[in-house]
Amino acid sequence: MVDEVKEVTEKVADLDVKGDAQEDDGTEVDPWDVKGKVDYGKLIKKFGCQAITDEHVTRIERCTGMKAHHFLKRKTFFAHRDLDQILEAKEKGQPFYLYTGRGPSSESLHLGHLVPFMFTKYLQDAFKVPLVIQLTDDEKVLWRSLGIEEAKRLARENAKDIIACGFDIDRTFLFQDFEYVGGKFYENINSIQRSVTLNQARGIFGFKGEDNIGKVAFPAVQASPALPDTFPHIFGDNKKVRCLIPCAIDQDPYFRMTRDVVPKLGYHKPALIESVFFPALQGDSGKMSSSDPNSSIFVTDTRKQIKTKINKYAFSGGQDTLEEQREKGANLDVDVPWKYLNFFMEDEEKLAEIGEAYSSGKMLTGEIKAILIDVLADMVERHQRARALVTDEIVDAFLARRPLSL
Amino acid sequence: MVDEVKEVTEKVADLDVKGDAQEDDGTEVDPWDVKGKVDYGKLIKKFGCQAITDEHVTRIERCTGMKAHHFLKRKTFFAHRDLDQILEAKEKGQPFYLYTGRGPSSESLHLGHLVPFMFTKYLQDAFKVPLVIQLTDDEKVLWRSLGIEEAKRLARENAKDIIACGFDIDRTFLFQDFEYVGGKFYENINSIQRSVTLNQARGIFGFKGEDNIGKVAFPAVQASPALPDTFPHIFGDNKKVRCLIPCAIDQDPYFRMTRDVVPKLGYHKPALIESVFFPALQGDSGKMSSSDPNSSIFVTDTRKQIKTKINKYAFSGGQDTLEEQREKGANLDVDVPWKYLNFFMEDEEKLAEIGEAYSSGKMLTGEIKAILIDVLADMVERHQRARALVTDEIVDAFLARRPLSL
Repeated sequence: MVDEVKEVTEKVADLDVKGDAQEDDGTEVDPWDVKGKVDYGKLIKKFGCQAITDEHVTRIERCTGMKAHHFLKRKTFFAHRDLDQILEAKEKGQPFYLYTGRGPSSESLHLGHLVPFMFTKYLQDAFKVPLVIQLTDDEKVLWRSLGIEEAKRLARENAKDIIACGFDIDRTFLFQDFEYVGGKFYENINSIQRSVTLNQARGIFGFKGEDNIGKVAFPAVQASPALPDTFPHIFGDNKKVRCLIPCAIDQDPYFRMTRDVVPKLGYHKPALIESVFFPALQGDSGKMSSSDPNSSIFVTDTRKQIKTKINKYAFSGGQDTLEEQREKGANLDVDVPWKYLNFFMEDEEKLAEIGEAYSSGKMLTGEIKAILIDVLADMVERHQRARALVTDEIVDAFLARRPLSL
Repeated sequence: MVDEVKEVTEKVADLDVKGDAQEDDGTEVDPWDVKGKVDYGKLIKKFGCQAITDEHVTRIERCTGMKAHHFLKRKTFFAHRDLDQILEAKEKGQPFYLYTGRGPSSESLHLGHLVPFMFTKYLQDAFKVPLVIQLTDDEKVLWRSLGIEEAKRLARENAKDIIACGFDIDRTFLFQDFEYVGGKFYENINSIQRSVTLNQARGIFGFKGEDNIGKVAFPAVQASPALPDTFPHIFGDNKKVRCLIPCAIDQDPYFRMTRDVVPKLGYHKPALIESVFFPALQGDSGKMSSSDPNSSIFVTDTRKQIKTKINKYAFSGGQDTLEEQREKGANLDVDVPWKYLNFFMEDEEKLAEIGEAYSSGKMLTGEIKAILIDVLADMVERHQRARALVTDEIVDAFLARRPLSL
């Protein structure tokens, strides 16, 4: 079975795609809401994390022997906690593992959802380490009017999109909470819940009296996979394997809490590597939203739909008239097509040329949009071809509790 | 295996013992604290439950074809919720099941801990229904400075004392949360957590900001076994099997919450049958406490220890001098030996004679204490003989996930 799965996932990996960075400026970030233009410099200070530096990028290239992902070079992943300790572990030949996840609230993912998975796949390939991926179907029941069966079904559907990103079956364990909570996982949830007071949880997550008690308890469910012995089939009862969590910056509160709590339980603090948000088509109003189909490009969209959405909704920093554009050029700071290209166009030279031409007025909005449409449609079509290869049997193989290559 | 277990548990059942009622008057009752003299009449009004009547006792005798337990006749179990619906179900030949439990906080049980199990065994024998017994090892970690491994070990130790009460292996499923939470149980915990707000939980249980978030979430863990499909190996996905919960009245808040929540999830409200508290040796200051060895008789005490504790600590309603006692007689309302006899002396006539003689001054404190010492020591020795028969294999057999006789 594993061999057959590998054959398919290798095919999937061949279809793999890469991405790019942008900047922003604003306020109000928690795991459920991002409001206003985000100032990432301020966010780093507010959250107390550190910036990713060029030295980090060089060090990562040196210790993996691979070129850094453009998400790193362009600082799409711009912030970290304890990344240096992970790199030091790698340099000393000590093991670590990756942990990321998704709340399966919708049928299909949008491009913003793909970003952490694309980056995690790069990290797995570069560092050759085990990866655990949590599907928080339980969270989605607590936060949304979603039935349990529907949440479980969406988790499996989303798993297919995740697997389509090309993860290595020998090094990847996928789990959905409704199936996997129990045993050591439940014990770790209990230990973490015991270590966090209601006051602390309210301070970190802003829970209100009218929130349900499941929400109040949930942070421990998202925290536990940062403890290696939550996965006895992978790590046995080893508490000392370090964990690196690639995620968007809005998930930081969960892991700030985790980092406060776990040392006294005998674990290392998990390290984090955190990305900016993927902007909505309409611009800097924050993350893309699954609930507004016109705010996002979905991985299920056709080339024609992508073309329509980009032409109709993608906020342009170009000037109002041809004459003005030729004269003043586009404002790249607010231009969504330019931001999207920074996420998904791999070719550094070509990207620089486009930036130069568009900002100087040599290139028009329609032209950059046409380039973007091709980049996105190619990427989405490749994703769709990969996802079509992911059968229920392959999902089961990734969900199976089994040892991984360490 | 089941046959061998049955042989032993039948032996255990032969060793079985029964108990008795008393009354009280006071305040402050929640699942963790009982303070002051309890007024059970007021408690019924405050909690909104109903009194057990003589009609209930007669109806139970009629529909089970068995004499009622003296816990019922003497109103040791004095309050209920929806007991009539359970009896109606029984009369119509519809199934129901029993659910009780224990928080394994100490190595050995005291006599007060035995009361609900002795009564539950009677109910199982009389109604011939399945029984689930929850060992909340997780609760004890959240509330006490107890490690997880220690809580799990205590759960198994306590299981032996519970099994020694003589439960029917064909109709009894025992589970400890750290082993059993997961799957449908976790789904039901999630459904209940989703239905209870932080405000509601604080209103019912009085949680404070400094309480840990596990405590806030825990009521759903104790509520879920009142939903039959928490046990797929017993009830499949049937949501409509009624549940009757025998417990001490201090557990009422958990099930008030459960009853509020579960109808909108498609279940019947669980019914309750609730006991008074077992008094401490020192008298009406509330429940016996495991933390004060001199407040309680433990099931591990020797005849000699029981004799010393009763003679030294059991609060007496007898008069200070022989002359005064002969003249005024004892005050049964505050006399602990009399209360204990009402719990554990089965013989109605003999009990009435003792009450008459002691309250009129014909019997002295030393005499009633001597009678009590014999009753308790016989009972405790019988329990110890039964417990010695309960091997780890028998515990495993009761913990095994399997169908039960319905």
